[in-house]
Amino acid sequence: MIKYSVILGNVGQCSDRYMTGGYGRSFELEELFERVASIKGVTGVELIGKWHLSDKTVGKIKDLLKQYALEPVAIIPDHFGTQIWSKGAFTNPDANIRREAVLETNRMCELARELGCSLISIWNGQDGYDYPLQADYIKAHKWLSEGLAQCCADNPDMRIALEYKPKEPRNHSFLANVWTALTIIGESGMPNMGITIDVGHSLEAYEDVSEAICAAMSRGRMYHFHMNDNWRLWDDDLIAGSVHTVEYIEMFYWLKKLGYSGYISTDQYPYREESRDAVEQTVLWMQAFERLVEKIDDTRMQEILDANDAVKSTAYIRELLLEG
Amino acid sequence: MIKYSVILGNVGQCSDRYMTGGYGRSFELEELFERVASIKGVTGVELIGKWHLSDKTVGKIKDLLKQYALEPVAIIPDHFGTQIWSKGAFTNPDANIRREAVLETNRMCELARELGCSLISIWNGQDGYDYPLQADYIKAHKWLSEGLAQCCADNPDMRIALEYKPKEPRNHSFLANVWTALTIIGESGMPNMGITIDVGHSLEAYEDVSEAICAAMSRGRMYHFHMNDNWRLWDDDLIAGSVHTVEYIEMFYWLKKLGYSGYISTDQYPYREESRDAVEQTVLWMQAFERLVEKIDDTRMQEILDANDAVKSTAYIRELLLEG
Amino acid sequence: MIKYSVILGNVGQCSDRYMTGGYGRSFELEELFERVASIKGVTGVELIGKWHLSDKTVGKIKDLLKQYALEPVAIIPDHFGTQIWSKGAFTNPDANIRREAVLETNRMCELARELGCSLISIWNGQDGYDYPLQADYIKAHKWLSEGLAQCCADNPDMRIALEYKPKEPRNHSFLANVWTALTIIGESGMPNMGITIDVGHSLEAYEDVSEAICAAMSRGRMYHFHMNDNWRLWDDDLIAGSVHTVEYIEMFYWLKKLGYSGYISTDQYPYREESRDAVEQTVLWMQAFERLVEKIDDTRMQEILDANDAVKSTAYIRELLLEG
Amino acid sequence: MIKYSVILGNVGQCSDRYMTGGYGRSFELEELFERVASIKGVTGVELIGKWHLSDKTVGKIKDLLKQYALEPVAIIPDHFGTQIWSKGAFTNPDANIRREAVLETNRMCELARELGCSLISIWNGQDGYDYPLQADYIKAHKWLSEGLAQCCADNPDMRIALEYKPKEPRNHSFLANVWTALTIIGESGMPNMGITIDVGHSLEAYEDVSEAICAAMSRGRMYHFHMNDNWRLWDDDLIAGSVHTVEYIEMFYWLKKLGYSGYISTDQYPYREESRDAVEQTVLWMQAFERLVEKIDDTRMQEILDANDAVKSTAYIRELLLEG
Repeated sequence: MIKYSVILGNVGQCSDRYMTGGYGRSFELEELFERVASIKGVTGVELIGKWHLSDKTVGKIKDLLKQYALEPVAIIPDHFGTQIWSKGAFTNPDANIRREAVLETNRMCELARELGCSLISIWNGQDGYDYPLQADYIKAHKWLSEGLAQCCADNPDMRIALEYKPKEPRNHSFLANVWTALTIIGESGMPNMGITIDVGHSLEAYEDVSEAICAAMSRGRMYHFHMNDNWRLWDDDLIAGSVHTVEYIEMFYWLKKLGYSGYISTDQYPYREESRDAVEQTVLWMQAFERLVEKIDDTRMQEILDANDAVKSTAYIRELLLEG
Repeated sequence: MIKYSVILGNVGQCSDRYMTGGYGRSFELEELFERVASIKGVTGVELIGKWHLSDKTVGKIKDLLKQYALEPVAIIPDHFGTQIWSKGAFTNPDANIRREAVLETNRMCELARELGCSLISIWNGQDGYDYPLQADYIKAHKWLSEGLAQCCADNPDMRIALEYKPKEPRNHSFLANVWTALTIIGESGMPNMGITIDVGHSLEAYEDVSEAICAAMSRGRMYHFHMNDNWRLWDDDLIAGSVHTVEYIEMFYWLKKLGYSGYISTDQYPYREESRDAVEQTVLWMQAFERLVEKIDDTRMQEILDANDAVKSTAYIRELLLEG
Repeated sequence: MIKYSVILGNVGQCSDRYMTGGYGRSFELEELFERVASIKGVTGVELIGKWHLSDKTVGKIKDLLKQYALEPVAIIPDHFGTQIWSKGAFTNPDANIRREAVLETNRMCELARELGCSLISIWNGQDGYDYPLQADYIKAHKWLSEGLAQCCADNPDMRIALEYKPKEPRNHSFLANVWTALTIIGESGMPNMGITIDVGHSLEAYEDVSEAICAAMSRGRMYHFHMNDNWRLWDDDLIAGSVHTVEYIEMFYWLKKLGYSGYISTDQYPYREESRDAVEQTVLWMQAFERLVEKIDDTRMQEILDANDAVKSTAYIRELLLEG
Repeated sequence: MIKYSVILGNVGQCSDRYMTGGYGRSFELEELFERVASIKGVTGVELIGKWHLSDKTVGKIKDLLKQYALEPVAIIPDHFGTQIWSKGAFTNPDANIRREAVLETNRMCELARELGCSLISIWNGQDGYDYPLQADYIKAHKWLSEGLAQCCADNPDMRIALEYKPKEPRNHSFLANVWTALTIIGESGMPNMGITIDVGHSLEAYEDVSEAICAAMSRGRMYHFHMNDNWRLWDDDLIAGSVHTVEYIEMFYWLKKLGYSGYISTDQYPYREESRDAVEQTVLWMQAFERLVEKIDDTRMQEILDANDAVKSTAYIRELLLEG
């Protein structure tokens, strides 16, 4: 049974490098919670460090979580939005900043405990490079692996999920795809290191998202899931289901088959839409896909997969979708 | 009312640069016709020069068209599959070969007349370049425009449609996207020069296919339509509807709204599938999309478009598709 | 003889959707001019409306231009960075905003005249769409063409250059590539409508930039040129020459051959670099390419192009570059 | 000290899905050897199973290797060019074919021993899928890992290198990038399983090739290297150095720094070029890059990398390349 949550900022305001002052208006913390709570079917919220969660706000957030009966699903430490991380967090050329990346994670683990949350989702947005011949790849990957392992070792009670992405804000990210994450996890030996799959990051990496889900879940490492859509070449962070259909059906088929029981968080940037409504659409599409997948006959689908039969597969999908 | 046709070779055998001997078995001309005719809803066939249509086969093809009650929808002259065109047809560095490209088109117009077909679809597959600093772009574009205009001038009774594509088999094609075609058409002044939109080529060019349809139809230049699907980065020539859904709904919405009354031909490469069955699936998906689009309330959809409202648009699509 | 200029903001501060407060520190207008002037070989500056150029700043800018002996090369009106344009400027669903897009252009023409500048470079950043079935493509393209033509008609003394780009900030831009611009120009009949080619936008559109240069220059429509580099899939706005080499040599070869005598402006986003130094590198690379191209034997190169000989071409480039 | 070799078919004839009969003429085995041997600086040859190497030809090939003093660098078993592999080799839905994939590898190991070659490069070209909801990803990846491990276990005297590629001929390959290979290698525990990096496959996977080299070499798993160039979005298999420059300099810098001492094989498809000459150009570019890299001051470059300084890095490259 899948549960739905929202990254708090998703129902707020977005900006980009041209509209630096933001599209639409900004929202207060209370408003953001109210907006999330107003979306039917959502029972959790995901928080980003510094942007929303800090020593100063943790008390208020605890109250708001209780007030709106929302579960704190995951915490994303800030490793990407403060100037100190400009040239990387875990892979910064400065050893002090690399150390600070671990400490910031540990501080967020502390706040997570206070909120009753046991999942940390690390996104290494600034850990990468922009130019050829800019980075020492060997040192950087060593630092990345060591830093992430340190976070896991320091917080054995927490599950630490790595959210890979091929690029942006750096032109190349070190943690580029599901296999990079699995290599780091395998070599670390850490039992509490896992993966956050973000649909848009996975599409951008030319993965079939379901193959990534299978790679992570078959190794017991799929800790979390971020949902959005795009045009396949960039992390457009659109309403899930607004562009693609068949691949979502495939995802929900595999999540069900493999027994995914965690949360799915929306992760969108609704620059020009009423952001609460855009997030609501994602939830409605996901619920619709879940219902559709309930109709799939497991034996029939497994026979199709075992025969590798694309003709029968697309015929079955069409039957479910358009001839139901 | 849309009519469906099949490019004859689609129900035959495919090869690629590794499986040079072909996937599956090859088929005789009669078998190919029989296979096309066996697909319900298909009333036309499209023929490729040299591969199937030539002086020698034209009589037999005339008979087969009659026998299977199939309309000859369009002829694609061979400008890409014979060694003479290796370095280009209309843009070949050799003036004799450039002239031959026009003559070959004219010969195909002759055969088309014999079959009672008035649409020629030119695909400039070999007109392009593979390397930087290989082509004189100014000469090449001049040759391309002049040669295509000559074909139109020589055959005023035929409609000549240009099928653009950004790349493959050349790494860069001169006729790359719908706007290149419109520029050539506009500058030529020819009343019988139009466009064949191929879904896969359009997706590969990062076009929204419906925008390309609107660009061509609003200028009265959309002569023909080729249908297939892909993963957006390459002309994978898959079963239409096997990967994308929403964009097909959008396409059929615009085709209906703008009154497209021509044929849609499948254009697939079913390397590993039973090719007849793979083509049949495309026809079934297209008919299903056509039916779905019938349910769209024109006023409601126009209001959504006029308000540019992505939230309402995706909600409406979901309603039609999954909550119908 | 090519002249070099800098878009004023390039030597300032950048932000993105994650680092919303900006990388590095911000700079005052005077500092920006001083930084531009400190780059050897730069004789011009390009200004963006609202960000730098307005009724209030025009006097001071006039003084600064004189003080630093910089030519005002081009003005880019703001059609992308103020909330009013969130859903488009020339293609906004609201007719008043569409009108405002023309008026804003006219106001910038007024300020340009005051500065002694006769080139307006329009970048339709917000004119596009994010989702399928969001836009009425026919209306939008009509509005775009009419609005741009109106700007040209209202300002016959100015040259108005269109800067195409396939995407960003919208997921799809209406003015996507060089051929879209040429179609609009051709259909408008306006003698003072031309094109700004931006290297990064062109690469992102899977154009060979030199083919785009030839398309625009052979029609007398290449008014301006923006210089940067990227990894070919996104407008990374890097130091020109930092990633690609051969294609720049090709560009400078064609600019020389076709007698381009305008300015080239840098257009970069040096998020994590000392921005003045990053811009200086672009200028140094361009000057180095210019010098290299001086060594090309025109007869030999034309023979290579006429023979379409990729082997001889790459051998010649290597000789020039590495065996000189 | 890098040694250069050529995949034998590179100097022969190419075909594609349109030009099924091939561009240019075909060549006999003897001619191919003669053509390879005529390229200065080439001391080895790489052979593909069935296309060139088989029980019947092994004797003749042994003679030709001796006659032309060429080393047998690596054998690529045929897992992609015979109809039996149409739906996969190691991941074929049919268990008998999966077994045959291992047996075919073992047979090639036998022939390799006969030739005095100890490197097998496996390319899983047909191991993948074309459609969503076609493959059982969990079974397929299990089969792939088990089959490849079996090959290593059966042939402990051979080094078995996996050549990853994101797509083509399948629309999605199971062994997609360097990290997929490293995950499989790590989980297999096999000491003789490594990686063949193909520049074009790596670029197509949006890797910086040097990062992939570092990932493989720092783990002692880079067994082999294939050289070509492309436009970054597809495996165009062009002359190396014809499109990109800086990234090759970076590659040769890291190969030298990390002490790569193996062979580099050309892997091209010179469809329209005199194929021997196109291959020769690749060798000449590589030798030129090798010479350039000799001039790099290790201390200065390491300081740049340690400071992550893109400005100094591109300035140094320009100095080496254009101001030398």
